[in-house]
Amino acid sequence: MRSPDPGRTLATELSRTAPGRSVTLLGHVHRRRELASVAFLILRDRSGLAQVVLRPSELPDGGLPPEETVVRVTGTVSANPQAPGGVEVASPRIELLSEPAATPVVDLWRPTLDATLPTLLDHAPVLWRHPARRATWELGAASLRAFRRTLDAAGFTEVHTPKIVATATESGANVFPVDYFGRPAYLAQSPQFYKQQLVGVFERVYEVGPVFRAEPHDTVRHLAEYVSLDVEFGFVRDHRDVLSLLGEVLRGMLDGIRAEAAAAVAQLRVPLPTIPEEIPVIHFRDALRLVGAPDDEPDLAPAHERALGEWAMAEFGSDVLAVEGYPMAKRPFYTHPQPDDERWSNSFDLLFRGLELVTGGQRRHRHSELVAAIKAGGESPDAYRGYLEAFAHGMPPHGGFAIGLERWIARLVDAPNVREVTLFPRDLHRLTP
Amino acid sequence: MRSPDPGRTLATELSRTAPGRSVTLLGHVHRRRELASVAFLILRDRSGLAQVVLRPSELPDGGLPPEETVVRVTGTVSANPQAPGGVEVASPRIELLSEPAATPVVDLWRPTLDATLPTLLDHAPVLWRHPARRATWELGAASLRAFRRTLDAAGFTEVHTPKIVATATESGANVFPVDYFGRPAYLAQSPQFYKQQLVGVFERVYEVGPVFRAEPHDTVRHLAEYVSLDVEFGFVRDHRDVLSLLGEVLRGMLDGIRAEAAAAVAQLRVPLPTIPEEIPVIHFRDALRLVGAPDDEPDLAPAHERALGEWAMAEFGSDVLAVEGYPMAKRPFYTHPQPDDERWSNSFDLLFRGLELVTGGQRRHRHSELVAAIKAGGESPDAYRGYLEAFAHGMPPHGGFAIGLERWIARLVDAPNVREVTLFPRDLHRLTP
Repeated sequence: MRSPDPGRTLATELSRTAPGRSVTLLGHVHRRRELASVAFLILRDRSGLAQVVLRPSELPDGGLPPEETVVRVTGTVSANPQAPGGVEVASPRIELLSEPAATPVVDLWRPTLDATLPTLLDHAPVLWRHPARRATWELGAASLRAFRRTLDAAGFTEVHTPKIVATATESGANVFPVDYFGRPAYLAQSPQFYKQQLVGVFERVYEVGPVFRAEPHDTVRHLAEYVSLDVEFGFVRDHRDVLSLLGEVLRGMLDGIRAEAAAAVAQLRVPLPTIPEEIPVIHFRDALRLVGAPDDEPDLAPAHERALGEWAMAEFGSDVLAVEGYPMAKRPFYTHPQPDDERWSNSFDLLFRGLELVTGGQRRHRHSELVAAIKAGGESPDAYRGYLEAFAHGMPPHGGFAIGLERWIARLVDAPNVREVTLFPRDLHRLTP
Repeated sequence: MRSPDPGRTLATELSRTAPGRSVTLLGHVHRRRELASVAFLILRDRSGLAQVVLRPSELPDGGLPPEETVVRVTGTVSANPQAPGGVEVASPRIELLSEPAATPVVDLWRPTLDATLPTLLDHAPVLWRHPARRATWELGAASLRAFRRTLDAAGFTEVHTPKIVATATESGANVFPVDYFGRPAYLAQSPQFYKQQLVGVFERVYEVGPVFRAEPHDTVRHLAEYVSLDVEFGFVRDHRDVLSLLGEVLRGMLDGIRAEAAAAVAQLRVPLPTIPEEIPVIHFRDALRLVGAPDDEPDLAPAHERALGEWAMAEFGSDVLAVEGYPMAKRPFYTHPQPDDERWSNSFDLLFRGLELVTGGQRRHRHSELVAAIKAGGESPDAYRGYLEAFAHGMPPHGGFAIGLERWIARLVDAPNVREVTLFPRDLHRLTP
């Protein structure tokens, strides 16, 4: 791009710049330190930090600008083994590009952001500037890029489907009502029905977009709005093909993080998981036995999931475990049953370090079976007219999955609360900032 | 990826397959033709069309499956200069993977989809399967990929910001109310305030996501929900730097279409525009004079925009024209004024073939000026608390733009109505499918 500031040098480029050269830095004042014989200005730009050194005579009237003020610094590159990258900028001219900044509620220049969760969230616009916090989102951005790259290479088409819908997608509960030109409407809980219909068009599709859940529970894992990485594709034999693609996508996302967010990984010092070529699988029925739960439990409790995660690590050295075969009674109508025993489903949950991260599986693709399943659930097929139309006109066997972006980041950095890694979280109590 | 059907050959791969080899095709029956001495099945998969030829003795009982039925075809590659790609599949075994399909409301196998707009939209789940229709979306998918690639290469970070917000973002009008756990909330009209705040964090950001406008007008250009390609970045000198990046992004999108959606371009036979290295610019004041409008007109009428588009083509051979300097009175409070005359703004509209496609510009970045502008508009700064917090703590000079995805596609293919190129449009009257 035509550089808005042609002579600009990024902080991380300084170490590759010859001493004696004149450079221009642009960024925020990350920290200022005025000592008796010398002063330092640490500048923060999108690439990292740079040290600017001033003799007392070079200090501006009134001293260095306050932290977070935006400045242009022009000076001379100078070797200094103590400075980050071994270089600093000396004899600087400092020009203010913003008004002098107010002091943030928490010091952004300290290595660790010492703030409670409410403070973090209330002051998100400013506290996301902290390098360690920002790095968590950079893992997410690198993940998104690699998610798409993996799927693009496999012939997938990106789609965007409506978020305002006429009927609830997953269940009647937990939907947000919208006043749609005076008519009732809802926010989509998932792109499920649309991505399936589009398998009939593009065969392989993905969508990255917001989904909305009016979760009445205030937990560390739930958000009222989150970013869903949705995948759906045709001509699967069963849910194991879906799980196989999921493994490839997750490995691609981790490779992307390693290759393109190395600085963020180093900053956060997080051990990245390994996803085995063959993700270990346990049937729901066997999972219940393994954790000592009654045979007729319809779901896994969080404690069960944790125990299964520990088992997968001990048994397979794997951070992930797929639990397949969840009872049909607990899965939505579009779930494909297990062919040899229709009490179970061809669906799975992927546990990541003992926490549910992804739900996926094979879907029903025969029109008559979908209609029967809707009726068996006590609903009218009329409520699913557009969806069923696609199936009346031929749909391939298909399946897919959905990854919650914020949960993925939270698990990578072991965040105790998903809100910490969400740019501007929405929940039962929080609608701002 | 582990192939769900390891022996599968895509339609477009057939021409590179040696005659005599056995292949398996997977797809929809695009067309069936049973003649006296020979029968043809045209199969459609995600890559294109393939011809399958049958002798009468090879026909299944009951004849070929109806159009749109999903099939697996196993047969032998055979050279045939009349077939697409010079090859066809002979001696086939045909296996149904779906129930026999119902006949679509409009024949999908005809080269042109002969349907009115209401039919197109009512039956979107099936009519998007038509190759010419599908190709329009493929231009969009290729555009998205190239949009991100261009920005990733320039150091931008992808962000995702909330779509449920506490206050209207652009103006009090045209917002959809949401019942948020019993509290009033709205659907975001744009990520404007969030992307600006995040310039303070990442310096360069983009977001691709839905935006919502309760447009009370039923026009060929407006949707109630559309996909916005939002960009915002710091350290611009003025709106001309923003326009320069916009040009680079649009050229990148067109390059991406040429490189990665060549089949769709060929299918649609659309002449792609050229975006000059320097996009021609006209000041709003001069634009009014050029089209013969009074000096005090506050906006350009559609007829004016068309005339300006023709002028740009005649004068500069350019499909695009930027109109800069729109009156501040008609721009939102965050717009940066033109420094030498504050009646005008440092903002622009980009006209693409005489229709507004993009709005962009420089934003105010000084806290005190933003507060004054909010007050001058008769509003309370308290309503913008989170937004203003970012500015109180130092924000660089910045600007950005937003491209409407569906409008972009519509202009590329010269669609008379933006709904034609929207997967599942939402408007004043339409909430389904």
